[in-house]
Amino acid sequence: MPPTSTELPVAVFDSGVGGLTVLHECLVSLPHEDYLYLGDTARFPYGDRSPRELLAFARELAGILLDEGTKLLVVACNSATAAALPALREELEGRVPLIGVVRPESRLAAAATRSGRVGLIATPATVASGAYERALADASGGRAELHAVASAELAPMIQNGGEVDERTVECVERACAPLRGARVDTVILGCTHYPLVRPVLQRTLGREVEIVSSGEAIAAEVERELDAAGLSAPTDRRGDYRFLASGDPEAFRRLGTRFLQLPIAGVRHVEVVPAGPVPAATGAAA
Amino acid sequence: MPPTSTELPVAVFDSGVGGLTVLHECLVSLPHEDYLYLGDTARFPYGDRSPRELLAFARELAGILLDEGTKLLVVACNSATAAALPALREELEGRVPLIGVVRPESRLAAAATRSGRVGLIATPATVASGAYERALADASGGRAELHAVASAELAPMIQNGGEVDERTVECVERACAPLRGARVDTVILGCTHYPLVRPVLQRTLGREVEIVSSGEAIAAEVERELDAAGLSAPTDRRGDYRFLASGDPEAFRRLGTRFLQLPIAGVRHVEVVPAGPVPAATGAAA
Repeated sequence: MPPTSTELPVAVFDSGVGGLTVLHECLVSLPHEDYLYLGDTARFPYGDRSPRELLAFARELAGILLDEGTKLLVVACNSATAAALPALREELEGRVPLIGVVRPESRLAAAATRSGRVGLIATPATVASGAYERALADASGGRAELHAVASAELAPMIQNGGEVDERTVECVERACAPLRGARVDTVILGCTHYPLVRPVLQRTLGREVEIVSSGEAIAAEVERELDAAGLSAPTDRRGDYRFLASGDPEAFRRLGTRFLQLPIAGVRHVEVVPAGPVPAATGAAA
Repeated sequence: MPPTSTELPVAVFDSGVGGLTVLHECLVSLPHEDYLYLGDTARFPYGDRSPRELLAFARELAGILLDEGTKLLVVACNSATAAALPALREELEGRVPLIGVVRPESRLAAAATRSGRVGLIATPATVASGAYERALADASGGRAELHAVASAELAPMIQNGGEVDERTVECVERACAPLRGARVDTVILGCTHYPLVRPVLQRTLGREVEIVSSGEAIAAEVERELDAAGLSAPTDRRGDYRFLASGDPEAFRRLGTRFLQLPIAGVRHVEVVPAGPVPAATGAAA
């Protein structure tokens, strides 16, 4: 007998381990749900990919997760959300609800800013999409102004998982300098990897700048969506979690355990279509 | 020419690397100050030591830092604060202002609780001191009730710096179970190591429980104290930081870099009086 819909897991996908920051917040709010996480580590980073490629990736990953069985899909990758969410939502209409990371963050930022000057740090793909400009304009009724900084380096530096060193600090300082110059009072972390260096970011931006990341807002949206669709699991159980990775499962397990602070027993490998080279000569970002 | 008082660093000491969570918050709020951090890693953990021993340790460390030169002393260790702060404050009266970690947290907890049921997780030494009961009663005007849990294992587990595994999660769950049973709505992290496993704690306690840690409150108290004493450094400079450790400098550097996410170039070794064995047969806590 196939499981009924309420018994299916919530599925989350990302280009790597960054989306675990979103999964963590879902586990805090909804510990009774089951989760299925897919990290596309074989094709990481996403940050310099074209919108067309990102849509193809997102479609493929959504397909894998639907085959595994899921009642709700979270795109926990800002580059993929910015490039693919509207098209993907249309394609999956009536099959599974879909939640992305751009809108919830923009809402939080619009609510947090007092000066109306909001900063964004994100990958080149996310910044180029203009998705945050639109979402912030929507969320603030046109009252907030976005100052966007593209960083091709920060997400890969975090995903590599090394020690925070002078290079990391310099990279963060480079990203923050124009935002300090623009005197923003709120900064959106437009990549799910960035909360993992939040201490460095907060020191560089200072106490008076509010840092907005999407995890908690997405968890709230997942809860609302499940409730609205009558798909919530009973709250008197403890959920289960499973992990899939398109790259090396052991590397994912190690990084994931550190980033999520959640013991990850096993990671199953899944095959994806190999990615072409990143178009831009400058390299890479998530 | 000796430096004038405003030019001296703020000094912070702890039993190990946990106090770096406090230093981090000071760096966020007061990046223009210089800092001198001393980790007594040779005698870590403090959690099962007697009040008499802890006072002797605190006195010795304060002496080392005063010899190095400091304009303000932060005892960033809850066990040492709980056992030694009043006596140490009296001894240093007129020489250097002293800030501990118990009162600022209790104030935050009193402000945060709605039900009046406040939890505390701390080392056996801290719990046995009754310092939080008194500080919370003071801060809440007797309206808040403290539910204290002593953990001898959690701080050493964190200080060892290994991967978060089932053992860590079980240790956190054991500590949180009585607090969930008492339906507290606020939990004080009564050890500076604990913020480093905040994700695990927040998942175990759930979204509705507010977690209070001392870093930010202490940073605010440092700022107030410096202002009041006319000891603040000019705000147009960038401060410097230096590290001392009584144990292995390289181990401190490695753990510290990870915990603080701040590159630590060099750590200087300082000698302390060797500690006797921990009195309780059960072992150890920070």
